[in-house]
Amino acid sequence: MRLISYTNVHSESAFCAVCGDDGIVDLSGRMNIHELGHALRTVGASDILEQASGKQADLPMSAIVSYLPVIPDPARIFCIGLNYEAHRIEAVRERTPHPTIFLRLPQSQVGHGQPLICPAESDSFDFEGEIALVIGRRGRRIKPEHAWSHIFGISAYNDASVRDWQAHATQWGPGKNFPATGAFGPSLVGIGLFDENEIIELKTTLNDVVVQQADTSMLIFPIPELIAYISTFTELLPGDVIVTGTPGGVGFKRNPPLFMKQGDRVSVEVSRVGRLTNRIIKEILS
Amino acid sequence: MRLISYTNVHSESAFCAVCGDDGIVDLSGRMNIHELGHALRTVGASDILEQASGKQADLPMSAIVSYLPVIPDPARIFCIGLNYEAHRIEAVRERTPHPTIFLRLPQSQVGHGQPLICPAESDSFDFEGEIALVIGRRGRRIKPEHAWSHIFGISAYNDASVRDWQAHATQWGPGKNFPATGAFGPSLVGIGLFDENEIIELKTTLNDVVVQQADTSMLIFPIPELIAYISTFTELLPGDVIVTGTPGGVGFKRNPPLFMKQGDRVSVEVSRVGRLTNRIIKEILS
Repeated sequence: MRLISYTNVHSESAFCAVCGDDGIVDLSGRMNIHELGHALRTVGASDILEQASGKQADLPMSAIVSYLPVIPDPARIFCIGLNYEAHRIEAVRERTPHPTIFLRLPQSQVGHGQPLICPAESDSFDFEGEIALVIGRRGRRIKPEHAWSHIFGISAYNDASVRDWQAHATQWGPGKNFPATGAFGPSLVGIGLFDENEIIELKTTLNDVVVQQADTSMLIFPIPELIAYISTFTELLPGDVIVTGTPGGVGFKRNPPLFMKQGDRVSVEVSRVGRLTNRIIKEILS
Repeated sequence: MRLISYTNVHSESAFCAVCGDDGIVDLSGRMNIHELGHALRTVGASDILEQASGKQADLPMSAIVSYLPVIPDPARIFCIGLNYEAHRIEAVRERTPHPTIFLRLPQSQVGHGQPLICPAESDSFDFEGEIALVIGRRGRRIKPEHAWSHIFGISAYNDASVRDWQAHATQWGPGKNFPATGAFGPSLVGIGLFDENEIIELKTTLNDVVVQQADTSMLIFPIPELIAYISTFTELLPGDVIVTGTPGGVGFKRNPPLFMKQGDRVSVEVSRVGRLTNRIIKEILS
């Protein structure tokens, strides 16, 4: 099952299941809920799956006027830092015995095809291709061996970073929360389509040049351990998003640095999910 | 004006204005909104003030069965680190040219009189008395000289910290987000009761012994600069909470360290706001 959050022809937020090659099942209309995260928190994952299964398309793909972030308004977005060895080394950071976790705010997100905005305050706008998880079932102190069953689906994320603001102090939040810096999509692929031990591939391209390439076998803290760790300090809730970390190759540690500029096109590709693509716009204050 | 979020005799979430010595005006009933942050985001600060002004008490104070966090479900809680020189020095951290900012999640909050919980995973549970602001008016790139007009009110916060989890990696989130570790209250005092240049005092006591004492004249980044900085990377929204930093005297840098234990009573007192008091419970997993 593949889900898309989108804006429809009435300029309303909606979400749907993709049905065959050219059709969608409008789930938000059937469920009278307009945000996928809200649907996960209230109606629940199994009801969403049931609404989607075995249905005929009721709208053409063209009903998707523009893409929204897969979860437009998540209650929490847990981002993992330094979770690939090559990135940890290029960032000149020590290996830690536990995951590095910071939070992104929903207000910083955009969907597939929407511009990523380099803020007026900076020229150090960097890509970070990542594999994203959406939680489907709540849990506290989840054991790694049970973690997989708490995942609703997988998507792609560009955790784009304003590097100078990220380095203003020890905590990275300011560089990770400017508006329109976190791209999330294009779709969510239900966890049922993945094998539990499947190696998921990740590739970032900037103007069609591959700049990052890795897979989940290279994660320092694999997905089940991330879920176990996060759920120790907070109960994981349906609709929560975990962005699992970026591999080596980021722009700010290259020589010379490679930052994203007005007009650039950046893509993050994840196995089975497809390609999340965004243009860069440089914000100009009037 | 003084507002309290509370649980009423019907076990419902509610908020009220305090009216005289022994009465309250039940605002949530009049407005049919049950969460103060939601009221700020939807109806707005000025309507809340109008509902409260000049009214006779309609319930006695005893209608407050238990206190909730002043904003029970804030969209965002921005916490400031290392914002008093004595704390920066005891924490052995460099002075940075910009504020240190991390995020707390609403799920970690408790109200006045509710237990603060030292999680089963740790014995390093530390106090951090702080002055909290609630935003009343939205704004992006707010100039420091306009910042005061965006504040709805002032309260007290205990940003209690699980120190070993805070130090697991460079980012502090895991040590700041266990359930029932962020105490917020008892009440919110409307910004109209404060002068813009007033020095606000802060005092933390553990079992009636003063362990932290400071005032806003000692802030490295004063309140208007915090609002200006945060609103540069994200639009500040009504109901957002800013926790302005803890002064020197925290437990984990004392020799020997002073951590909060089962049965301890911790209080944070802020000028005009009053005293936020919580007992410590040590979580035991069955």
